[in-house]
Amino acid sequence: MITISAFKCERPEPVVLTLDYAASLREYRALQPFGQVPILEDDGLVLFESGAIVLHIGERSETLLPKEAGARARAIQWLVAALNSIEPFMMNVALIDILYANEEWAKLRRPGAVAFAQRRLSALSKSLGNKPFLDGHRFTAGDLMMTTVLRILKHTDIVSGDRCLAGYVERCTARPAFKRALDAQIADFRNAA
Amino acid sequence: MITISAFKCERPEPVVLTLDYAASLREYRALQPFGQVPILEDDGLVLFESGAIVLHIGERSETLLPKEAGARARAIQWLVAALNSIEPFMMNVALIDILYANEEWAKLRRPGAVAFAQRRLSALSKSLGNKPFLDGHRFTAGDLMMTTVLRILKHTDIVSGDRCLAGYVERCTARPAFKRALDAQIADFRNAA
Repeated sequence: MITISAFKCERPEPVVLTLDYAASLREYRALQPFGQVPILEDDGLVLFESGAIVLHIGERSETLLPKEAGARARAIQWLVAALNSIEPFMMNVALIDILYANEEWAKLRRPGAVAFAQRRLSALSKSLGNKPFLDGHRFTAGDLMMTTVLRILKHTDIVSGDRCLAGYVERCTARPAFKRALDAQIADFRNAA
Repeated sequence: MITISAFKCERPEPVVLTLDYAASLREYRALQPFGQVPILEDDGLVLFESGAIVLHIGERSETLLPKEAGARARAIQWLVAALNSIEPFMMNVALIDILYANEEWAKLRRPGAVAFAQRRLSALSKSLGNKPFLDGHRFTAGDLMMTTVLRILKHTDIVSGDRCLAGYVERCTARPAFKRALDAQIADFRNAA
């Protein structure tokens, strides 16, 4: 699940449906084929996939998607990079640790999965360098998605062990908008518990 | 690597750089942190990530990204679904088969990885139903990306064993634009060999 609260809407905020719908799996699957959260319902349009939801909401926020064509394309590039070049390798390690910890294959595979994740992270770290955000001085939807994805391994030191990436995650999660969104998300879980 | 030739450009076609750059890895890494193909160079803008490149090119093609806001958002949704909800699970099986076939963990893991991939594919198949394309009667960037991703397992019957998905892949790859793009891509490899 992603957390979005990085902007002020000019029209009423779209509703991100989460736990209520998940309670009714069949109904939910009709809207979200893979049964995952979140989905977004916005004035009759129903969307799933965090990345698509962020891009949709980003159209209303110059913070998330800059208006200048090049900066906008690069923000989208980093959002896709987070989802396709980083997340799968974070998830491979996370699933081994969380779902499959006691399975023989997982024990044998973990070092290789960690090494692969570290290669990707090291490339990301090098690309970030001394810049505060992925495209330079400006936070965008790309950073929102990358931060979310990097937090998948917060139970390990695989990300936090890289000083450059650790600082980056700290910088992105220290934003008041991130804190508000995370608090709201956790509150949903608390209310449903 | 993806193949794009689904549209007519009003200005000169952007150049998709592939094998020539890959030859010079250091120079290439400065442009593409993860060392992957493709990258796109378009009037001074350098972009990587297939998904971001398709979305960038899609802005010039109503075939790829419809102008109507809802249809456009759903095309993006399916593109992201291909990259984030389907591809990682196709790749997990493909890497086991291609890179790790002789490793003990891979032998133990394969049935579970196949089962996971099949669950995602079955959900996708159900969502597609009798529609010719993911959003109905119209081919979009979402179908372009989904087809590319489904072809990752073409060495198995995991996708082709589902009649609905097999028909879908056939429909998408039978498009003349797909054939032209694939031929051009293979020619790059042939020329470099």
